[in-house]
Amino acid sequence: MKRAKKTTVKVERKILDRDEAFAARNRKFLAEAGVFCLNMISSPGSGKTTILTMTIGELKGRIRVAVIEGDIQTDLDARKIRQAGVKAVQINTRGGCHLSAEQVDRALKKMSLERLDLLFIENVGNLVCPAVFELGEGGKVAVLSVAEGDDKPAKYPEIFATSAVLLINKIDMIGTGAVDFDIEKVKREVRRLNKKISIFEVSAKTGEGFDGWCEWLAGQVKKIR
Amino acid sequence: MKRAKKTTVKVERKILDRDEAFAARNRKFLAEAGVFCLNMISSPGSGKTTILTMTIGELKGRIRVAVIEGDIQTDLDARKIRQAGVKAVQINTRGGCHLSAEQVDRALKKMSLERLDLLFIENVGNLVCPAVFELGEGGKVAVLSVAEGDDKPAKYPEIFATSAVLLINKIDMIGTGAVDFDIEKVKREVRRLNKKISIFEVSAKTGEGFDGWCEWLAGQVKKIR
Repeated sequence: MKRAKKTTVKVERKILDRDEAFAARNRKFLAEAGVFCLNMISSPGSGKTTILTMTIGELKGRIRVAVIEGDIQTDLDARKIRQAGVKAVQINTRGGCHLSAEQVDRALKKMSLERLDLLFIENVGNLVCPAVFELGEGGKVAVLSVAEGDDKPAKYPEIFATSAVLLINKIDMIGTGAVDFDIEKVKREVRRLNKKISIFEVSAKTGEGFDGWCEWLAGQVKKIR
Repeated sequence: MKRAKKTTVKVERKILDRDEAFAARNRKFLAEAGVFCLNMISSPGSGKTTILTMTIGELKGRIRVAVIEGDIQTDLDARKIRQAGVKAVQINTRGGCHLSAEQVDRALKKMSLERLDLLFIENVGNLVCPAVFELGEGGKVAVLSVAEGDDKPAKYPEIFATSAVLLINKIDMIGTGAVDFDIEKVKREVRRLNKKISIFEVSAKTGEGFDGWCEWLAGQVKKIR
């Protein structure tokens, strides 16, 4: 979202201040209800929604989950989440390239937080803009599919530098020979940007790697309650 | 880039006006030099750079090509273009989620347009923001990789509605069984958004489909000269 002009920076500062006030309010609201909240960020098509439906299935009966779905338009993803058996509140940004804390504030009011342990916010598919807008989440989750190439941490460092978790998705593709992706290089570069990040290699198609990711989620939920 | 607040819209209107003035200037400059210019837009990792290096190879000796490379940071892509044997001018947006016409204006001044037929501008990897900022190009090229999923035209319609060309890339992956992508559905939905769009199915890995795309390019260059 950053631009070079000074006047623009000033205006964006104002928008960010307003956003940060809503983010702080959301954070307080979620903490009081004892809900752990994650903001899922990736390029379009990295597999955020499929990761969520698989995760919901894995956590069923153990952890109470809901999802806020951010999309420019359509409710395709919210419908998939509902089919997986949990509540989804759709936000349509109508052209907006990221969710705002104010939009999340309105969505939270439509939910019964006292009946939840874990709330996922699926942001608009965009590796750039959502990285700089706090929504009040407990942490960000970056998703990178192996089909996108292993140069992405170098080219789009912000999201990798600020996330609590990196999910490297579609690892089932590596075996097919369809992609050329150096996982060790990606992990090395991401850890150089962010020493504290937890990295899980997963396939939302086959379920591979979901045990580690779901254990991490269960641990975070336990900590907050 | 669109946000709901009225004050924000006003400010963005101003930025857009300034941008449009630069875009008009770039357009005039390119027309006078007889250069056909395309603005390449896609998600991160759809294969824009690999498509360009393959295209440069196919057009060698027939059409004189150069590239303006837009990236948040790094010159990884510009180096790949130079290795393919043509001039590349790098623009680093330093956080910016799209190229601006002003940045392109500065890059054009570093090029000898009279020695060119075809100029590609590779925008920042982002399916949302670059779609609404004109750079002075003769047309937009949207790139969608089959690994991203066939729901993208419905979810991100703006770029598909406004592009002259859609390149459906990585079609070699379909045969491997690694992806589940309905090409006919995508073509149908994109044509519903945009009756005039030219669609090519390509693989920048194998070169499949590049004959049609390169014939289209040669035809456009011929028209403008």
